[in-house]
Amino acid sequence: MSYDTRFLGMAKAEGVPPPPKAVADYIPTRRVGDVLYVSGQGPFKGDQLVCTGKLGWYVSVEKGKEAARITGFNLLYNVRDALGTLDRVACIIGIDGMVNCDPDFTQQSTVIDGCSELLVEIFGDAGKHTRSAVGQVALAFDVSVEIKMQVSVVSDDEDT
Amino acid sequence: MSYDTRFLGMAKAEGVPPPPKAVADYIPTRRVGDVLYVSGQGPFKGDQLVCTGKLGWYVSVEKGKEAARITGFNLLYNVRDALGTLDRVACIIGIDGMVNCDPDFTQQSTVIDGCSELLVEIFGDAGKHTRSAVGQVALAFDVSVEIKMQVSVVSDDEDT
Amino acid sequence: MSYDTRFLGMAKAEGVPPPPKAVADYIPTRRVGDVLYVSGQGPFKGDQLVCTGKLGWYVSVEKGKEAARITGFNLLYNVRDALGTLDRVACIIGIDGMVNCDPDFTQQSTVIDGCSELLVEIFGDAGKHTRSAVGQVALAFDVSVEIKMQVSVVSDDEDT
Repeated sequence: MSYDTRFLGMAKAEGVPPPPKAVADYIPTRRVGDVLYVSGQGPFKGDQLVCTGKLGWYVSVEKGKEAARITGFNLLYNVRDALGTLDRVACIIGIDGMVNCDPDFTQQSTVIDGCSELLVEIFGDAGKHTRSAVGQVALAFDVSVEIKMQVSVVSDDEDT
Repeated sequence: MSYDTRFLGMAKAEGVPPPPKAVADYIPTRRVGDVLYVSGQGPFKGDQLVCTGKLGWYVSVEKGKEAARITGFNLLYNVRDALGTLDRVACIIGIDGMVNCDPDFTQQSTVIDGCSELLVEIFGDAGKHTRSAVGQVALAFDVSVEIKMQVSVVSDDEDT
Repeated sequence: MSYDTRFLGMAKAEGVPPPPKAVADYIPTRRVGDVLYVSGQGPFKGDQLVCTGKLGWYVSVEKGKEAARITGFNLLYNVRDALGTLDRVACIIGIDGMVNCDPDFTQQSTVIDGCSELLVEIFGDAGKHTRSAVGQVALAFDVSVEIKMQVSVVSDDEDT
């Protein structure tokens, strides 16, 4: 099954529609050569923010991990918008996982696994990636998780 | 008007002289191929730090946004030092916006808009960029804002 | 003396064995073209975490700086695993230095100098790099320091 078909099937099964288009001075993606840079995304289902608040006292690890998975879907929707199809992904280079949390929260890795696992479910070995998973004192709109991504793209002249 | 002329005019009009040269094991920029990586910068006017303290209780959103704009000027001064002129900028790839803030501050996006808007004022569509805008519990020298940047550069062999 | 010989000598002299291999959906490094991206690393000696807790009240600047140096060794072990030898490093592009700290801690720069100095001791001018050095409210496993790195690699066709 192609990456793109698998992604669309999983997004539908898990109830994650595309995020709204950003209208601002910043943009969802920028491609330079064969690297696609993706702006930080949060846990939206369509235009609905589904997980806010800090990991630790308020948001559970399980809920945070699910938020990271949903964020992963949104990152990939943006990649898909840029490339037309996820089948043009060569590999995932890296993700920067940022977790809104209390000072004594230390399970950032487990939370960001929610996104990491999704990437490997969809792309297999090509989905394995470098990453950081760290704690932020606060995030915009109080989202529980924000993740950036860099993607390696199949060269246009390798196209079939 | 060229990017470079526009930048110099705006920097002068807004009273932002070049930042001091860093003398350390780290450097302001590193170019690899046609990508220029720029070190994190803060809200300096010359060697004067103009905005310290945390967004939230102590620093207003308006003042933080202005700090992000001043930081943008400093990032571009460093790009200019590396390239000789901003007219060699192909496009802005991305910025990492980091806001020194209280745990309950959630307007990181609005603060970092100060830099995003400057980039588009100077470069137009080429200034649109990917970004993250997140909260840090503390920043070096208590600066209110620190921003990193990545820039796509016109290839030497595309030179006229 | 070659980069690789110098690195191995210093790592041995300072008692820093290679870190354990990560087994997960994320990977220590990803190479795309001539850029090697390295996952966030912490202050491990072998499988032993040697510095946890927040800079400020609990961990001293001196101890944090040493933790950043040890983290630098671990980053380079991962680069070495990916390239076979550090002699294939063209230059260090950048590091993202993240310091686990209290809200009133402002010496992130001094802490991350521990890694920056190591890079220049090993690679000389090629070790000079762009960087950020910021404070995080919390880090995974309560490590005191986490650092990511990007490295420019000698092209395969420039090989001798």
